[in-house]
Amino acid sequence: MDERVRRHAEIIVDHCTDVRAEDHVLVVAPAAASDLVVALYERLGERGARPSLGWSNARAHRAYVRAMAVGDFRTNDAELAAMRETDVIIFVSGPTNVAETSDVDPATTAAASRAAQPILEERLEKRWVITAHPTPGAAQKAGLSTAAWEDFVYGAVDRDWAAQAAFQAQLVDVLDAGAKVHLVSGDTTDLRLDIDGMRTVNDDGRLNLPGGEVYTSPNPDSAEGVVTFDQPLVHSGRELRDVRLTFEGGEVVDYAASQHEDLLASILETDEGARRLGELGIGMNRAIDRFSYNMLFDEKMGDTIHLALGNAIAECVPDDRTFNASAQHVDMLVDMSRDSRIEVDGEVVQRDGTFAFEDGFEG
Amino acid sequence: MDERVRRHAEIIVDHCTDVRAEDHVLVVAPAAASDLVVALYERLGERGARPSLGWSNARAHRAYVRAMAVGDFRTNDAELAAMRETDVIIFVSGPTNVAETSDVDPATTAAASRAAQPILEERLEKRWVITAHPTPGAAQKAGLSTAAWEDFVYGAVDRDWAAQAAFQAQLVDVLDAGAKVHLVSGDTTDLRLDIDGMRTVNDDGRLNLPGGEVYTSPNPDSAEGVVTFDQPLVHSGRELRDVRLTFEGGEVVDYAASQHEDLLASILETDEGARRLGELGIGMNRAIDRFSYNMLFDEKMGDTIHLALGNAIAECVPDDRTFNASAQHVDMLVDMSRDSRIEVDGEVVQRDGTFAFEDGFEG
Repeated sequence: MDERVRRHAEIIVDHCTDVRAEDHVLVVAPAAASDLVVALYERLGERGARPSLGWSNARAHRAYVRAMAVGDFRTNDAELAAMRETDVIIFVSGPTNVAETSDVDPATTAAASRAAQPILEERLEKRWVITAHPTPGAAQKAGLSTAAWEDFVYGAVDRDWAAQAAFQAQLVDVLDAGAKVHLVSGDTTDLRLDIDGMRTVNDDGRLNLPGGEVYTSPNPDSAEGVVTFDQPLVHSGRELRDVRLTFEGGEVVDYAASQHEDLLASILETDEGARRLGELGIGMNRAIDRFSYNMLFDEKMGDTIHLALGNAIAECVPDDRTFNASAQHVDMLVDMSRDSRIEVDGEVVQRDGTFAFEDGFEG
Repeated sequence: MDERVRRHAEIIVDHCTDVRAEDHVLVVAPAAASDLVVALYERLGERGARPSLGWSNARAHRAYVRAMAVGDFRTNDAELAAMRETDVIIFVSGPTNVAETSDVDPATTAAASRAAQPILEERLEKRWVITAHPTPGAAQKAGLSTAAWEDFVYGAVDRDWAAQAAFQAQLVDVLDAGAKVHLVSGDTTDLRLDIDGMRTVNDDGRLNLPGGEVYTSPNPDSAEGVVTFDQPLVHSGRELRDVRLTFEGGEVVDYAASQHEDLLASILETDEGARRLGELGIGMNRAIDRFSYNMLFDEKMGDTIHLALGNAIAECVPDDRTFNASAQHVDMLVDMSRDSRIEVDGEVVQRDGTFAFEDGFEG
């Protein structure tokens, strides 16, 4: 086995989830991630933990949800009962075919998600991490050889996370002290948000591996203006392109996409919260130096921001602020490397991908 | 997908487990059985069930148990909680390498089994089935091409189970009315058992698929004599050969094996019940016409009997009889096709593989 797989498992079990003796650890992974599962199980044995192994099988999921009647989805009480007894959840992605669910009706996906919502809420109370094992399917989507994709993934994952956190803390301080955010990119994005009173999280690779972003939740009635997401994203097995959203009073009042606009519409129609923003994130992991059609990596990339339609992030929203609740949480990216800036309370904190606290910044 | 895979899924969901709307169904399968899992999920969607998918990963299991200290195994309370909410369990075997756990210390395997015992007991209260997906690994072990192994598996699985049950009922009647069983094969097996008051089960392919045997539990203090299991069996990843057991007062007082005798010793030392018999089974599925080193098939083969060391079968033991309890249940086979006979209360019911109620029987 590639020694980097063992190193990956070590980071997951030790840094991300701090597994201790007798912890109940649920590992959920696709078959293509078998090597990482073996390495994780070895490490979990060394820790004296109690692992369970769930198999995320996209072909089976597709077959099941297509055969179900939309109204028949029910919460899986067995999975909910197990989740209540679980201490740590390790999700491993590693697609064989990212388009596997591309022929599932979005209404079906939404019904399945709603039924699973109580399990998700329970999971968010635990220690958890989402990571990725490098697979040929993901490499293909990124346009890379499998070997080059492995180098990319392990480069992004095996970082000095303390140093990364110290670097990011400089931006956290700015956002925690700030209120008005203004995002400008070319002539296609000009959006104002309010983050007053919200908390900013310094992602040091615990909940997501790779980590390397700073994020908060905007006040849900604050978004004003237009944003064009110039990087595609894969959602429900489909590639959404050139999503353009217009906000008034925090709500999407106009939208467009050059591909799969119907999917975008179905996301927005899920519930009230799906038409408002739940997250503003700023990517700061410089080891991620290219887009890969894989949000776990893309959203951490330096010189990018992402906004999520839908559910806000609990850690970011104090009790005296409004939490934007939704069954959706759909991240979308803007490349900020050129002709772009982020302003906080009128001060430019990033221009063309370079932060005010970095060398080469031109305010 | 091979249409026989869909047919297999249909038999599992309809005949074996009678899945109904909203049932919680746990499917546990190895990666090599992905096609059957997809077919099962499709069928479970048609039934409106709520499936969960566990991944049985022998490499991960091996890595985990080898890394654990023997004293540290604990019951997985998350799996136990899930099992309590589960209605149906579908276990699919389909090895990639049957020797995967051949370098795990039997004491470690026993410790892991003891920790899992409460989950097993909970599972036995539910509707469940154990079946097999044809894999190259299992085909190799059987000495067949994968295509020939597929033909063999589907031939054994896709039977007229009502007709099979009617055929087997003739033997059930004999055993239910009988008390003293005498098993003779060549000059290596001469064993007497008492089944007085025990119930006999007619296996029509519900709990095991393929099914096709008739089984009961002997009174645990009744075995007297010698039995030589002339067919090898794979246990804990190791191939046990030529196991010979001598019984007195129901208990093993002498044992030998030509290969892995240490494993046999560790099985016998597990607990009190592991030194006594928990099952007498008689194979009657004529579609299984060759040994395959795979107990799920071998024990159903016509012209064979099997005896299990260890745990008795709940359905077979009425409240007024002694139940032989053990963490073990290890089936071992005797080929009865030549120079052999089964007697019940002094009457020959099978000679050289032919039953008294079949054509060609020579009492």
